[in-house]
Amino acid sequence: MVERKSDDLDLDAIFGALAHPTRRELIEQLASGPNRVSDLAEPHDMSLAAVSKHLQVLEEGGLVDVEKDGRVRRCHLDATPLSDAFGWLTRYRVFWEDRFDELEDHLEEADQ
Amino acid sequence: MVERKSDDLDLDAIFGALAHPTRRELIEQLASGPNRVSDLAEPHDMSLAAVSKHLQVLEEGGLVDVEKDGRVRRCHLDATPLSDAFGWLTRYRVFWEDRFDELEDHLEEADQ
Repeated sequence: MVERKSDDLDLDAIFGALAHPTRRELIEQLASGPNRVSDLAEPHDMSLAAVSKHLQVLEEGGLVDVEKDGRVRRCHLDATPLSDAFGWLTRYRVFWEDRFDELEDHLEEADQ
Repeated sequence: MVERKSDDLDLDAIFGALAHPTRRELIEQLASGPNRVSDLAEPHDMSLAAVSKHLQVLEEGGLVDVEKDGRVRRCHLDATPLSDAFGWLTRYRVFWEDRFDELEDHLEEADQ
């Protein structure tokens, strides 16, 4: 039987947060510095409510902190959870590197 | 306006596939070598149909190839799409490393 660990819950939330282009785009926008929800929403072809929902998913994944200042909500990127996702992927690095080496060998053989 | 690229569709499917503990566990199981669906299902507390559904999500993300040999379905890991996820995360590496450096500085100051 496979047991669920708390790390699993984090990785579910982190990978889940990254599984949408708008949320990856919001991370990219916040990499330039903190920004207001209304300014973050501006380049997206969706309602402010829809962008807020995506920001909430990022917040649940621990990737965004939302600071309230009166009616203004300012978002900050917290990239630290991404290191957990990166760490998980690193375990499989040898597998894709082996695959790329195989592909390269095939191409070299085809060229000869 | 943010345009959708085909890379986005891939990353959605890859990160989405990784956002569940059973699917990450299946990847870990397949890292030891190809295996039959029935054997892969064995350690999981769920029906064969539920495990097959998770394998289908992994297949859609390009992470698993399912080969049919009569009634037997054998799965192989294809880790190459993980390199795209890894590549995306790498862009933000500097952000979490900076954060860890800050935390370390704070701890050192607190120790003094």
